[in-house]
Amino acid sequence: MSRFAPRPDPPYYAVIFTAQRTDGEHGYGEMADRMAELASQQPGYLGVESTRDDAGLGITVSYWRTLADVSAWRRQWEHTAARNQGRAQWYSHYELRVAKVERAYGWDRGDGRSPGDGGA
Amino acid sequence: MSRFAPRPDPPYYAVIFTAQRTDGEHGYGEMADRMAELASQQPGYLGVESTRDDAGLGITVSYWRTLADVSAWRRQWEHTAARNQGRAQWYSHYELRVAKVERAYGWDRGDGRSPGDGGA
Repeated sequence: MSRFAPRPDPPYYAVIFTAQRTDGEHGYGEMADRMAELASQQPGYLGVESTRDDAGLGITVSYWRTLADVSAWRRQWEHTAARNQGRAQWYSHYELRVAKVERAYGWDRGDGRSPGDGGA
Repeated sequence: MSRFAPRPDPPYYAVIFTAQRTDGEHGYGEMADRMAELASQQPGYLGVESTRDDAGLGITVSYWRTLADVSAWRRQWEHTAARNQGRAQWYSHYELRVAKVERAYGWDRGDGRSPGDGGA
């Protein structure tokens, strides 16, 4: 399964979540899997890209069709994070940015050129 | 040094670069350090967040004041990547998205609340 999100024609929305994990698991993996599955079932979900290094710094970017889709997902995410009182266990710090994707490009070594630029 | 970028008041721009590294170094680390330093000296540079996992999937998000600042940086980045013929050595695939940050929030465990939401 590709770890890259699809590249629909802009505009669409990106939620950029940069977070420093705490030490210890505290049920994080289970929660993250559940939230990823929940996100994929939300209206307007386009895809996600996520990675985390050995020092616990992770960046997850989820993509959404409209700002309303983003807002609905944010409310659900915050509700779940609050309900589980997990935020302070899972993270020491995070930044969350909502951004409108205006241009998108891709490149793959297989063909040496952009496989269908969107909105360039 | 913090691995989080500052949180200026929106709007500003994000360049989301998700890339799968190839195996082997091929001078990548030196190039990446040089490009990061170059970026930080560009007009409109606001900061960067970057991480990569053991499987070589990395996400780097750089932040810029204006779209013109982004375009100037992109030209320089592509020029350097092409000049060094490094792209096919360093990456097997990447996606690059330019997005306008409309809202930004942060949270820190130290105080349990958002340390100054921007543009909410």
